[in-house]
Amino acid sequence: MAPSRTAARRRHPTLFIIGGAEDRVGKATVLRRFVRLAGGRSARIVVIPTASSFQDEVVAAYTEVFTRLGAPEPSVVNPQDRAEAHDEALVALLDDATGIFMSGGSQLKLSQRFPGTPLGEALHRAHERGAVIGGTSAGASIMSQFMISMGDEGITPRQRHSQLSAGLGLLEGVIIDQHFAQRSRYGRLMAMVAASPSLIGIGIDEDTAIEVRGRQVFTVHGSGAVFVLDCRSAVSDAPEARRGAPLMVSGAVVHSLPAGATFDLAEVRLVDFVEKHADAAVALATAKA
Amino acid sequence: MAPSRTAARRRHPTLFIIGGAEDRVGKATVLRRFVRLAGGRSARIVVIPTASSFQDEVVAAYTEVFTRLGAPEPSVVNPQDRAEAHDEALVALLDDATGIFMSGGSQLKLSQRFPGTPLGEALHRAHERGAVIGGTSAGASIMSQFMISMGDEGITPRQRHSQLSAGLGLLEGVIIDQHFAQRSRYGRLMAMVAASPSLIGIGIDEDTAIEVRGRQVFTVHGSGAVFVLDCRSAVSDAPEARRGAPLMVSGAVVHSLPAGATFDLAEVRLVDFVEKHADAAVALATAKA
Repeated sequence: MAPSRTAARRRHPTLFIIGGAEDRVGKATVLRRFVRLAGGRSARIVVIPTASSFQDEVVAAYTEVFTRLGAPEPSVVNPQDRAEAHDEALVALLDDATGIFMSGGSQLKLSQRFPGTPLGEALHRAHERGAVIGGTSAGASIMSQFMISMGDEGITPRQRHSQLSAGLGLLEGVIIDQHFAQRSRYGRLMAMVAASPSLIGIGIDEDTAIEVRGRQVFTVHGSGAVFVLDCRSAVSDAPEARRGAPLMVSGAVVHSLPAGATFDLAEVRLVDFVEKHADAAVALATAKA
Repeated sequence: MAPSRTAARRRHPTLFIIGGAEDRVGKATVLRRFVRLAGGRSARIVVIPTASSFQDEVVAAYTEVFTRLGAPEPSVVNPQDRAEAHDEALVALLDDATGIFMSGGSQLKLSQRFPGTPLGEALHRAHERGAVIGGTSAGASIMSQFMISMGDEGITPRQRHSQLSAGLGLLEGVIIDQHFAQRSRYGRLMAMVAASPSLIGIGIDEDTAIEVRGRQVFTVHGSGAVFVLDCRSAVSDAPEARRGAPLMVSGAVVHSLPAGATFDLAEVRLVDFVEKHADAAVALATAKA
């Protein structure tokens, strides 16, 4: 039945976008799902550690966990500059992959080497043919068309406290942010969406992922929550507010979505929710409460 | 013209609800407004330091700032237990006041001594006749009918991480929270409102206040923002979620409102906004950014 499963994946381009700090040593719920989407025992996974300052350690860590979860040893694609992003051997690795995983680190390192290069085009081709494109932290932010590359912490949206850069555009019409609750990024994402209300903000907690199928519908996995910020009907003083001032944003529609939620990004609404049982991380949170 | 100003106040019951840590040594924008509402040079202010563990210091500090801002020396009402909340001399002080100010501290100390006692009834009478009832931090929370008395920090709403108690009910149909951005209380207020969607959540930043007129319309003062959380049209798994689990809350309508915003609590919508010039606190935030 392997050919038909491959065909099914071809019909559903899939992104797997993780908010950082996913569990690797416990049940590894989030990474287990990525390995399964990549094809499990028959997966051909490529790790891209380029965002990180500790690339050898990142490759070793993901090699350990992906093989422990049943996948063959992954390949590595790690361009050191924009010129190397034209390397045909690296392009060939991405063209052959069933799963591609971008690590955390600095999303600006990724934006220097992937958008608009042959490696970036290979990522788009891989997505198109149904390979799962995964990324965590910086590797999550780079997926969207607009990417928050810098910003401050806090709940209050403030004027000119964040910076947008161009991401890969694998997912259009959104801004993805990560480490969302842990680094209190509600304010910075709301400020960006208030200034660009045609975009939908997606804030992903640590150890939490969205699985985006067919560029439109996502399902939540992991121990935290995913926030969706929708300012299409909001009013804001983003055109007038002074630098540093708290922004007025009235009428934003906000969704906080734990594992089991399915959300339609085209209609911007919850389409399904299945209450999940406790997993290890939630049990831990409960014990500390 | 003093009598007609008093008559005007009589027609508009006014609450002045501060999110804690209001500036006392600089421009004191927020407290300056309170003193003005209380009648300025002809004000008769009563300070209630009962929530605090440092009551003498609290009385000294507010006496200093209120007199510096032009008011006569305030009186003090400070019942040590529920029995003392029946003291007729203290009731008489509240009955004579043009402004009453409740300090920060523990809102549970206030809820023990004011709701349902003669002093609490005197607060309602004072509100009814147009004296301004002010409060900061714990003194803010006690104003609403439902009050968050305990809870955890964080953006993500979680099941059973907070506790509601009964407040004074000077403002019905809402839950007020304070130190909102500074203590990252978005999650706890959203969790409470998701479980009781007939209530509107109001989260007030430090050095920020809402002036509520006629029990319905509020205006924002100060350097931070006020959040309004409206779950009347949201769906939530609050009835099913396990303790500690992130709550699903889909479709909450959220407003973040800096100084200059006027909001109608009955219609739950922004009715006016005037962009304000930089004040000292905003300039400071800018300098640090």
